[in-house]
Amino acid sequence: MGKTILITGGARSGKSGIAETMTLSLGRPAIYIATATAGDAEMAARIAAHQARRGAEWITRAEPLDLATALKETDGQAPRLVDCLTLWLSNLMFSERDWRGELHRLIDTLHLQSGPVLMVTNEVGSGIVPDNRLARDFRDAAGTLNQQVAAMADEVYLAVCGLPMKVK
Amino acid sequence: MGKTILITGGARSGKSGIAETMTLSLGRPAIYIATATAGDAEMAARIAAHQARRGAEWITRAEPLDLATALKETDGQAPRLVDCLTLWLSNLMFSERDWRGELHRLIDTLHLQSGPVLMVTNEVGSGIVPDNRLARDFRDAAGTLNQQVAAMADEVYLAVCGLPMKVK
Amino acid sequence: MGKTILITGGARSGKSGIAETMTLSLGRPAIYIATATAGDAEMAARIAAHQARRGAEWITRAEPLDLATALKETDGQAPRLVDCLTLWLSNLMFSERDWRGELHRLIDTLHLQSGPVLMVTNEVGSGIVPDNRLARDFRDAAGTLNQQVAAMADEVYLAVCGLPMKVK
Repeated sequence: MGKTILITGGARSGKSGIAETMTLSLGRPAIYIATATAGDAEMAARIAAHQARRGAEWITRAEPLDLATALKETDGQAPRLVDCLTLWLSNLMFSERDWRGELHRLIDTLHLQSGPVLMVTNEVGSGIVPDNRLARDFRDAAGTLNQQVAAMADEVYLAVCGLPMKVK
Repeated sequence: MGKTILITGGARSGKSGIAETMTLSLGRPAIYIATATAGDAEMAARIAAHQARRGAEWITRAEPLDLATALKETDGQAPRLVDCLTLWLSNLMFSERDWRGELHRLIDTLHLQSGPVLMVTNEVGSGIVPDNRLARDFRDAAGTLNQQVAAMADEVYLAVCGLPMKVK
Repeated sequence: MGKTILITGGARSGKSGIAETMTLSLGRPAIYIATATAGDAEMAARIAAHQARRGAEWITRAEPLDLATALKETDGQAPRLVDCLTLWLSNLMFSERDWRGELHRLIDTLHLQSGPVLMVTNEVGSGIVPDNRLARDFRDAAGTLNQQVAAMADEVYLAVCGLPMKVK
């Protein structure tokens, strides 16, 4: 099985930058599997800033929903970076897909990869309990996803101030 | 003095699962001291999910307010897991008890235990500063509690994606 | 260059206490550069509690905006503790200063110090994505600041339950 690495952290903790450096250290060019969709101007600006930082060493593939297929189709070509899993989860929930089923399918697919896969995710559960039910449900789902992916990953890192702390 | 272990983490970081595994490694059956009360349907569902995961190796005791007495009465019987301290704090504040006095009494009691005590707590201070005063006060109180218990604990762990990072 | 140390953590994670102990271990008395301003009663109470804990071993200098000058003017006198950078950032943004320019100037100044500088900052990005744009922008700016200071610091610590975890 190809190596699986999970990088987690809060917003602007430098997790994407750490993940990009790690991915390129495994091979160039690398494949960037973007789960973001430019739904509004703010998100479009964030995506553009990410792309500008990544430069020309990356082949970008947009995949807001079907990560399992994206991984299957790119296996063996180059190291892959999925950025990020919480946005993917959010896309699944917003589209009213069965996120638990999709998570199961993602993990099954990860076990079958011959090349390396790095994934970025978010810490969203370390603030005050949110007022609204939807935010609490999302926080719970994101925590479940993080635990399940971390359980099968070879390495897990927590990004703090742009620096990686090894968790596993 | 019995060993004292504190496990902290964000929501759905896997802290309860880690704490349960650690507690059972110290003796079976173990005593689960639950501070949760089924005040509404959402909380009742969370408690039921926790109980289903724990299975039959646990003796459950509900104790929303008087942790010191629960610890005194169960000492020497089996390893004990308190889940969780932030809910206990919330119960004390909601009941308008003197939480600082109760925290002092808890720490005095912990020093007198002959058997092991594991405690779960929450990280609530790593989000944006909350808008409302009550949430800020709770966040401050939870931080004070965490610091005081961690200062006297033999071991402290931070749960990240279901994995324990040793802090102390 | 004098040693540069960054201590980060959530609210009430014990980061200030850790930073104060570290600073005094480098020399007494030490200089406390406070970025807080007593803008309201709640903040005034927090400042008073901080001062009461620090005691007489500290020379306090209030500097809500111009950290670079404060560092230049105090270099070589005693170890300095800046508490904290996120409040400084907030002051800059509230005064509509160019925070990116000021951050650049801070980092240039840090590189020129002959004596040690410790700095406290906050983790604000590990909760649910805030509803309002201003909070998201602040969260992004704080993350950028943390990453840039951490990149040039000699040591970085994450405070958890009053205990320091070494990040760098």
